[in-house]
Amino acid sequence: MSVLVVGSIALDTVKTPVEEHADLLGGSASYAAVGASFFSPVRMVGVVGEDFPKAHVEYFASRKIDLEGLRVEPGKTFRWSGEYMWDLNTRETRSVELNVFEHFTPELPGSYVETEIVLLANIAPKLQSHVLDQVRQPRFVIADTMDLWINIANDDLRALLPRVDMLILNDSEARQFTGQTSLIKAGAAIRAMGPRFVAIKKGEHGCLLFGENEFFSCGAYPLEDIHDPTGAGDTFAGGLAGYLAAEERGNIEFAQLRRAVVFGSVLASFNVEAFSLERLRALSPADIDERYKMFRQMSQFEVLP
Amino acid sequence: MSVLVVGSIALDTVKTPVEEHADLLGGSASYAAVGASFFSPVRMVGVVGEDFPKAHVEYFASRKIDLEGLRVEPGKTFRWSGEYMWDLNTRETRSVELNVFEHFTPELPGSYVETEIVLLANIAPKLQSHVLDQVRQPRFVIADTMDLWINIANDDLRALLPRVDMLILNDSEARQFTGQTSLIKAGAAIRAMGPRFVAIKKGEHGCLLFGENEFFSCGAYPLEDIHDPTGAGDTFAGGLAGYLAAEERGNIEFAQLRRAVVFGSVLASFNVEAFSLERLRALSPADIDERYKMFRQMSQFEVLP
Repeated sequence: MSVLVVGSIALDTVKTPVEEHADLLGGSASYAAVGASFFSPVRMVGVVGEDFPKAHVEYFASRKIDLEGLRVEPGKTFRWSGEYMWDLNTRETRSVELNVFEHFTPELPGSYVETEIVLLANIAPKLQSHVLDQVRQPRFVIADTMDLWINIANDDLRALLPRVDMLILNDSEARQFTGQTSLIKAGAAIRAMGPRFVAIKKGEHGCLLFGENEFFSCGAYPLEDIHDPTGAGDTFAGGLAGYLAAEERGNIEFAQLRRAVVFGSVLASFNVEAFSLERLRALSPADIDERYKMFRQMSQFEVLP
Repeated sequence: MSVLVVGSIALDTVKTPVEEHADLLGGSASYAAVGASFFSPVRMVGVVGEDFPKAHVEYFASRKIDLEGLRVEPGKTFRWSGEYMWDLNTRETRSVELNVFEHFTPELPGSYVETEIVLLANIAPKLQSHVLDQVRQPRFVIADTMDLWINIANDDLRALLPRVDMLILNDSEARQFTGQTSLIKAGAAIRAMGPRFVAIKKGEHGCLLFGENEFFSCGAYPLEDIHDPTGAGDTFAGGLAGYLAAEERGNIEFAQLRRAVVFGSVLASFNVEAFSLERLRALSPADIDERYKMFRQMSQFEVLP
């Protein structure tokens, strides 16, 4: 099965307490599509400007990502610049240039219309809904969101939620969105808005997955050094969606989602080890398998292999 | 096997955003000893004043806790008063009256000298060392500590560490103690100070356990309502120590410590459901087994029972 990924494609400038790099490949669709590509065929929807380096397009193509939905528009590519604070947990956006992204209205090529797994990576909820309008009977729809949309497009987000199977957001966003300090209550409150499943990302503390009567707590991989957290959430969502597309046969059950969350966490843990998608570029299936086994090792407390 | 527990015994006044209760049974030794008593015989060392209610002593006795090491001194029992903020994660100490605890110098009864598992619950590191001086060849020594001792008794704490097998502390304390923002680095840094194992408690995010080449990440039980976090860490340490004493045969291995951390987390998750030790009073072995199975259920992602 395939994954349809829609989101932003950007050129990022990222500053951490120790390094700064400019004009990096970034954007939610870039991280998510590459993350998913380790598991299944991916169809990408996005827009770039004429300045977007050919090498990046070639990299997507080398990952067997279908680029029929990638539009090149006159003008410049979306640019984002951000700075991480000393603990790498908080970041400030330094500048945003929407450029060709300002009037992005994702239109699906005919060949994308029947895609089983849909990942609405982090963009405006209205655009996410617009993409969903064009997909014919998807089997599983995942939406990622962020504080910005909770603040400025709350109604759009709430309108989207009954149409998605799973919402992904981080812990502070879940609290902000629901007004609940308890993440357990926040997860339940978001499920009540529509999605059958909710994944709350907690950064260095892992991830919580909520279902109707089921709950999964996934730890974070014990990384000693994090170089660039940018795209971790997008890569998580991509890995999760890709794994579901690779494994899914029939209804998606909670047991599958557990493993999908672990594979998403595995991908995200690699991604933060280097700037941009550099670590993902060098990643092999054997690396993924090995780290998946580490996740099993670090979270089990009964029968250990 | 038995657990020796030394720590404070207090009468607490606790205020949360919704409730306030005075003169509650509290103190690190109370929570830890009762927590351990669900798994193994316990020997308690502590001091109370003449005002300490007989009912509390009877409760300890009803838990089969050996009270030969409990001294009743002229004067009043140690009193602590604290207030929890809106999210129940931060608390302020409102007042401390040391009373008989001020000159507490724990002396072990002869019958305690050969105890296999030693839990030095949260008291001054100098007192913890003093207790350890009196134990003959313990098999496993656990020390719990807190920010106060890191601040005012740092040298004493560092002198204690090479003598203990496991240190327990929370995430902010681990960062404060080591100057490392990464908990993974903090865990390694504390191990380098002496203890073979370090448990870093993360409240609602669970607990990390560090060994030489091994790592365990334990999630927190998904409680919707927390009534009083007081004593959660002490109960965790007590449950952990009690489980080790119940299961231990020969050297304590990492695999056992994983389960001990889960049982400690199970006990702590019950403890915060009510003020003081009220929830522990009503706890049955069947409750513990059931929640242990829930921990398994919420953390596994492969073969599920």
